[in-house]
Amino acid sequence: MDRIVYVNGDYVPESEARVSVFDRGFLFADAVYEVTSVLDGKLIDFAGHARRLQRSLGELEMPAPVDEETLLQIHRELVVRNGIEDGLIYLQVTRGAADRDFAYPEDATPTLVLFTQAKPGMADSPASRKGARVISIPDIRWGRRDIKTVQLLYPSMGKMMAKKAGCDDAWMVEDGAVTEGTSNNAYIVKGRKIFTRNLSHDILHGITRAAVLRLAREAQMEVEERTFTIDEAKAADEAFTTSASAFVMPVVEIDGVQLGDGTPGPIARRLREVYLDESRKTAI
Amino acid sequence: MDRIVYVNGDYVPESEARVSVFDRGFLFADAVYEVTSVLDGKLIDFAGHARRLQRSLGELEMPAPVDEETLLQIHRELVVRNGIEDGLIYLQVTRGAADRDFAYPEDATPTLVLFTQAKPGMADSPASRKGARVISIPDIRWGRRDIKTVQLLYPSMGKMMAKKAGCDDAWMVEDGAVTEGTSNNAYIVKGRKIFTRNLSHDILHGITRAAVLRLAREAQMEVEERTFTIDEAKAADEAFTTSASAFVMPVVEIDGVQLGDGTPGPIARRLREVYLDESRKTAI
Repeated sequence: MDRIVYVNGDYVPESEARVSVFDRGFLFADAVYEVTSVLDGKLIDFAGHARRLQRSLGELEMPAPVDEETLLQIHRELVVRNGIEDGLIYLQVTRGAADRDFAYPEDATPTLVLFTQAKPGMADSPASRKGARVISIPDIRWGRRDIKTVQLLYPSMGKMMAKKAGCDDAWMVEDGAVTEGTSNNAYIVKGRKIFTRNLSHDILHGITRAAVLRLAREAQMEVEERTFTIDEAKAADEAFTTSASAFVMPVVEIDGVQLGDGTPGPIARRLREVYLDESRKTAI
Repeated sequence: MDRIVYVNGDYVPESEARVSVFDRGFLFADAVYEVTSVLDGKLIDFAGHARRLQRSLGELEMPAPVDEETLLQIHRELVVRNGIEDGLIYLQVTRGAADRDFAYPEDATPTLVLFTQAKPGMADSPASRKGARVISIPDIRWGRRDIKTVQLLYPSMGKMMAKKAGCDDAWMVEDGAVTEGTSNNAYIVKGRKIFTRNLSHDILHGITRAAVLRLAREAQMEVEERTFTIDEAKAADEAFTTSASAFVMPVVEIDGVQLGDGTPGPIARRLREVYLDESRKTAI
């Protein structure tokens, strides 16, 4: 590993990419993040991620460390310096470093960190051709999942529960209804109609979700945004998830129940194709 | 500021106290912590904090970075190096640094960070003589508040809500019942009987809570561990909180409703005295 990482204005080797132990991102999870995909060296839906970052910062009354144009330049610089063809750019903003106190500091400078993850061939991953097997787990996260904070311990635990069950991911369930996957939005298809949970504080307002729903509607697919139960999901014709890093990922099994013939469904495959085509066209 | 901070085996000036941006404490809030008080240069209930740390680590399947004896030595070394008479020692363990992935890394070394905060005269703070004014806010935290993780964004937000309301702290309320304060356990007194919420996943298992309840019972005070509503709290004779850093703190107002005559109640004052006496005696 010898990536170049961005930390508060400097481009440094990853072994030197450090933050203060007094950083509120480290002490209080007082931080938000974004992950932007790179395909063919270009950024997918950068504007969407920049917009959501602004929203997250606003919800937490956290100042923005740099403006959107500067953020774009940093993304591009990291793509070039790390020779990223296909991969991810991770960005995190924290409220900054200050002596430990629950109350927000009055004079802290926000911390800005970005790094890359190379994922050669991510648009044609074997996982997406096979489809994901998921388990369901109770959703015990906090009540503001629409803010993209780094409070990701439970999603991490969920991913480990899935691994231990020999599966790929977990769908979280609250009051009988699916909220979302550990790091993606969840969808089912029944009678060629696509169902996904409506936006609220209960789920992340996925950038890929917004794009995929728009493309589905443009392709005359029927879409309904409403809660659906885990039982509906198990009885669905097909299912899938969306995220910036995995695009559209077919789901072929839920809690041991095979969906359809156990292979990626036609609507998920079609949406993945359409989303990737559109993303490549509009990448910057 | 020129404290000496402990980071992974080294004692360094705080300006050099840093962790990798890939640390899971920074990226995923995959970390737990403890705060131990120091009075007259000695540690208050170190064994209790060490025991709870072990429990938190166990619940998250996180390896312990050092054994309890080493932890004690580090605490004492920091007290000496920073000349702490009265104050706090903050300790944080994370799952360590690894390339970003929700799944736990297989080979990461846990990160261990400790630092001090001097609080001269903390046992006789003006705040404790005046008593705290609190507001109530909805408890929207995750479901495992018994694990002392650094997912502290909402408690921080709660503290800011309290500040904006001109108050000192916030009590969190779920289904009508008080869970706890932003960084302390909550108690009410009615007819000389002390009520505090019973232990569960809903609240932190306070080390100071355990000691104070034991001392209250030894002093023949009546104690009942059960949930109580915010309305009961507003109608209480007195109220207080306990925490390692503020000991026993009287509460004199809840949501603008004055308790008793608006000054610290006799039971809270007595328990604070008894707790501080006992703590000084058993400090190590």
